[in-house]
Amino acid sequence: MKILIVYAHPNPQSFNHAILEAFTSGLSQGGHTYEVMDLYAVRFNPCLDGGDLAKLTAGKTPEDIRAQQEKVSRAEGIVLIHPVWWTGAPAILKGWVDRVFSMGFAYKFDEKTGHPVGLLKHKKGLVINTAGAGEEDAEASGMTETIHRAEVEGVLKFCGVREAHHVIFYNVIMTNDETRRRYLDEAKRLGEDF
Amino acid sequence: MKILIVYAHPNPQSFNHAILEAFTSGLSQGGHTYEVMDLYAVRFNPCLDGGDLAKLTAGKTPEDIRAQQEKVSRAEGIVLIHPVWWTGAPAILKGWVDRVFSMGFAYKFDEKTGHPVGLLKHKKGLVINTAGAGEEDAEASGMTETIHRAEVEGVLKFCGVREAHHVIFYNVIMTNDETRRRYLDEAKRLGEDF
Repeated sequence: MKILIVYAHPNPQSFNHAILEAFTSGLSQGGHTYEVMDLYAVRFNPCLDGGDLAKLTAGKTPEDIRAQQEKVSRAEGIVLIHPVWWTGAPAILKGWVDRVFSMGFAYKFDEKTGHPVGLLKHKKGLVINTAGAGEEDAEASGMTETIHRAEVEGVLKFCGVREAHHVIFYNVIMTNDETRRRYLDEAKRLGEDF
Repeated sequence: MKILIVYAHPNPQSFNHAILEAFTSGLSQGGHTYEVMDLYAVRFNPCLDGGDLAKLTAGKTPEDIRAQQEKVSRAEGIVLIHPVWWTGAPAILKGWVDRVFSMGFAYKFDEKTGHPVGLLKHKKGLVINTAGAGEEDAEASGMTETIHRAEVEGVLKFCGVREAHHVIFYNVIMTNDETRRRYLDEAKRLGEDF
């Protein structure tokens, strides 16, 4: 499968980046091809602004948004990899969704019912997160469910991605090396079996 | 009460801006003072990056973050006003939280228990949203609960704001002028009674 990975962590030495590397090495072993959109590396502009809105309303898509939409359209699978910040994605990735998943590209409103309809045709979506919180705390506080609803349900499935999954690696700051190695093995396997 | 309003909409002619105006006129009538942080107007940088992290880790706060933290600290009440984009805030406001509500300023981890503890002392918080979706659709899809958990529970209450409320004005694109007038009256009253 041809996969677009949208990746957002500011530190190339982070554990999140190690997860990206393990996952992509798994993808290669599994016979998949992929493209990584490293949002911090390209300093992606995440602010949907008045200029964007004026163009989009006039049926024109700003150039940098169109380039991202082409990457999305070329892929059969889409993967978001990022740390959990405040029960959600870093702003640079939230803004990638705000700008790239525009109406008419990622969804539309049905003319008869008025309800939204997803326009993406991807076979599979996956969100991979690292979180500082432990699994029990994250479930008790509702963090796990909030981010799942926002990204897996509220973005990927909302836009029509047929099958979407979610994996969170918890407690990544305080845990031990053995657990981190296990997490990396699991990330690699997620790639192999994509 | 002295109130900080963090506002994020790219269009000064938007209904969201009309809500801001009605709310602030209500605040004045209610005898409150306020400061509006208009994130699009000042082109706030929402991307917490490697430079920020290096400084924060070394115990230094980047200048533009410190300026925002001083605004937060001077206020007794904090209000977020923004449209709902993808069950959350526009990236420019998500990133304001990512960068400004840093560990040691907005929360810390308790040394004994390891659990997070809020550090903000504000008496009251409020999130005011406009949404294109209708109320029934938003509740059925989980949008209403997701944004409530993310911002009211996951940010304001998490950081120690004593009392926090949430008002969503639904269906703002398709509704009629009478409903919009009612919304503006309600926004003004929210200011008067803050």
